[in-house]
Amino acid sequence: MNKTAFYNLSYGVYLCTSWDEGRPVGCVANSAMQITAEPATLAVSLNHGNYTNRCVSDTGYFSVCVLAEDCDPKLIGKFGFFSSREKDKFADFSWQVRGKLPVPDGAMCWFSCRVIDKMETATHTVFLGEVMDADVLKAGTPMTYAYYHKVLKGKTAAKAPTYIAPEAGQTAAKYVCKICGYVYDGKVPFEELPDDWLCPVCGAPKSQFEKR
Amino acid sequence: MNKTAFYNLSYGVYLCTSWDEGRPVGCVANSAMQITAEPATLAVSLNHGNYTNRCVSDTGYFSVCVLAEDCDPKLIGKFGFFSSREKDKFADFSWQVRGKLPVPDGAMCWFSCRVIDKMETATHTVFLGEVMDADVLKAGTPMTYAYYHKVLKGKTAAKAPTYIAPEAGQTAAKYVCKICGYVYDGKVPFEELPDDWLCPVCGAPKSQFEKR
Repeated sequence: MNKTAFYNLSYGVYLCTSWDEGRPVGCVANSAMQITAEPATLAVSLNHGNYTNRCVSDTGYFSVCVLAEDCDPKLIGKFGFFSSREKDKFADFSWQVRGKLPVPDGAMCWFSCRVIDKMETATHTVFLGEVMDADVLKAGTPMTYAYYHKVLKGKTAAKAPTYIAPEAGQTAAKYVCKICGYVYDGKVPFEELPDDWLCPVCGAPKSQFEKR
Repeated sequence: MNKTAFYNLSYGVYLCTSWDEGRPVGCVANSAMQITAEPATLAVSLNHGNYTNRCVSDTGYFSVCVLAEDCDPKLIGKFGFFSSREKDKFADFSWQVRGKLPVPDGAMCWFSCRVIDKMETATHTVFLGEVMDADVLKAGTPMTYAYYHKVLKGKTAAKAPTYIAPEAGQTAAKYVCKICGYVYDGKVPFEELPDDWLCPVCGAPKSQFEKR
């Protein structure tokens, strides 16, 4: 099987949110899609190990929030690389209850869903949700998974083949975020960045970067 | 509910193929996504009214073929706007059996899947398939549903608001394909096109266009 074939499937970049006894929780999801038009339903696939999976199972409700290309990348960093089990991911962002679910103001649109079915797999649960309500918060271009990889994270990979295959040896050192894998690529040498500089993707401090 | 929110979900453009007693069948699908990595599984949503749905149910096998931005648009026209019940959609294209399923040579990559579960909804079946094999046939940019609408079909919509709201009246006549909805937008006046001209999207003859 040629696993690179999977790179050619197209996705958006979403936040899937829910409640944990009144506390907002959520995670990044890319496997989400509309299943039926009438009634409108969406399916989202969440890993069993994801705390949001348990909250969606327990409450029977979830929201799918669409992120735009120009969204605050910290939304992806925070929701994608930490667990709601330990962290209040909503703490650093303004958010509202929309359609009964928590929605960060940085989302471009949202769908609030009631779970009407689910399908279990070895590692993920596919939740089927009937869309109770939906709205657009702002105009924008929905971020695709390809854009996220190419523009927000992958842009260094194209320039530095050693980032893809570091075992082949490399000439210039790279600083890589241990939390989210972001490769620092700024004009200012990494060592000269201020101490309070944070990873633009996940918000991790400078100390979480390692030289490779 | 603001239904325009649904326009912000991102999809690829795929062909889903199967067999009908040895005869290749297939249709266009956009709701397809990876569900798990190990083992690799894909889910695809097919309308109950779609003949390919029945063939996937009967055989337990399907293939998801990724179309590139520069693919032959007739693939979309033929597979998207006709039924395998009456038509041999593969007749006009070269194709091969790949991973035990029929795959048009115009696809950029393919995934052959064995159905391991399914979820029924009011109008669609979500088939969960374990990927048996996959390969890339050619380099290219996977077509997104947004690209399909914007570049292949929707480009006239932006220029002609009357196409979106024809009841508001319009000054210039447009010729629209009754089969697939393609709006002719060429430099040559529609009336002067040769008689054997075909719709670039679905391959319908000139006679299937109507003036609006």
